[in-house]
Amino acid sequence: MKFSPLISELITAFTSLPGVGKKSAQRMAFHLLERNRSGALQLSQALHDAMEHVKHCQACRTFTESAVCEICADPSREESAQLCVVESPQDVLSIEQTSEFKGRYFVLMGHLSPIDGIGPSEIGLTELNTLLDSGKFKEVILATNPTVEGEATAHYIAQMCNDKQLSATRLAHGMPVGGELEYVDGNTLIHAFTGRRSI
Amino acid sequence: MKFSPLISELITAFTSLPGVGKKSAQRMAFHLLERNRSGALQLSQALHDAMEHVKHCQACRTFTESAVCEICADPSREESAQLCVVESPQDVLSIEQTSEFKGRYFVLMGHLSPIDGIGPSEIGLTELNTLLDSGKFKEVILATNPTVEGEATAHYIAQMCNDKQLSATRLAHGMPVGGELEYVDGNTLIHAFTGRRSI
Ligand SMILES: [Zn+2]
Ligand SMILES: [Zn+2]
Repeated sequence: MKFSPLISELITAFTSLPGVGKKSAQRMAFHLLERNRSGALQLSQALHDAMEHVKHCQACRTFTESAVCEICADPSREESAQLCVVESPQDVLSIEQTSEFKGRYFVLMGHLSPIDGIGPSEIGLTELNTLLDSGKFKEVILATNPTVEGEATAHYIAQMCNDKQLSATRLAHGMPVGGELEYVDGNTLIHAFTGRRSI
Repeated sequence: MKFSPLISELITAFTSLPGVGKKSAQRMAFHLLERNRSGALQLSQALHDAMEHVKHCQACRTFTESAVCEICADPSREESAQLCVVESPQDVLSIEQTSEFKGRYFVLMGHLSPIDGIGPSEIGLTELNTLLDSGKFKEVILATNPTVEGEATAHYIAQMCNDKQLSATRLAHGMPVGGELEYVDGNTLIHAFTGRRSI
């Protein structure tokens, strides 16, 4: 015995979400059927609209339903002549929430990973190359993740910048603010020592 | 700065799912946009179809898109003259998976909870009353959850059965199979002792 066909299909469809197993999918399906059908229909519509209309920003590659995203469409964002390269649209949001950076972004939508067949063209480096040649930017801030792949990607792009005599910088490593020394991993601690500053 | 409108709407819509916060909703939205647009469109369609067409079985109240669910539509299910009362459609599935029970079900879609305004008519006891009066059943197995509300609901229905001279039984409490005595709660252990059998 299984649930009725439409319910079974809904449960199966929910398992295509990251982190959602069979039990959670069941809970989601019955929760919506019992308590929130209008919310479910809104989710159905939102999924449809986003999948049909969201594409990549022609300038920075982030996700947007416009030809060019809000940040790239803002001319004041070019005044600093800084381009910040990140791995994902979520990274853009994190940086924007600090209000620290006023330049433009380039979103790789991933990182170099030769083992998975992800080379320079898969992460938009052809488009990045064209953008760097536009002469709009003087500094490229490499804000890929401090992982093996993120570091490799940063070094690859730094080389591209060097070839063009463009300044490439990398986000600093160090102690997280509010963190406790006891719980910081050794590598981070080494970076924190090396990058120490006089107070 | 936020994500583009369609992406923001999708993230918000995901948070209507149980157990899904802002961060998980973001992860789901970007996962689908990046890696599984066809899966997302399937989920959109499945949500729409289920919410539009799934209603309650006219006989047992479980969810189904048919007038009467698969189990209620099967005449052999009445031969045992047993009716098992459960709280949710998921409970039906659990019992069916044991292949132990061959009778029919009645699904309360909840339990009595006066504090939340859930009384007898909200959990279908009017329909249950009619069903019990049909003369099709000789035993009512009360398989509501062993919680305060589940027990109260079971006792309420047992009283209905007694008034009709119908036999009402309750699932046994005891040690879970494969469980360790050390980890079984005291109440369960008391039930396990009281219900001990000679071997
Ligand atoms: Zn853009
Ligand atoms: Zn039914």
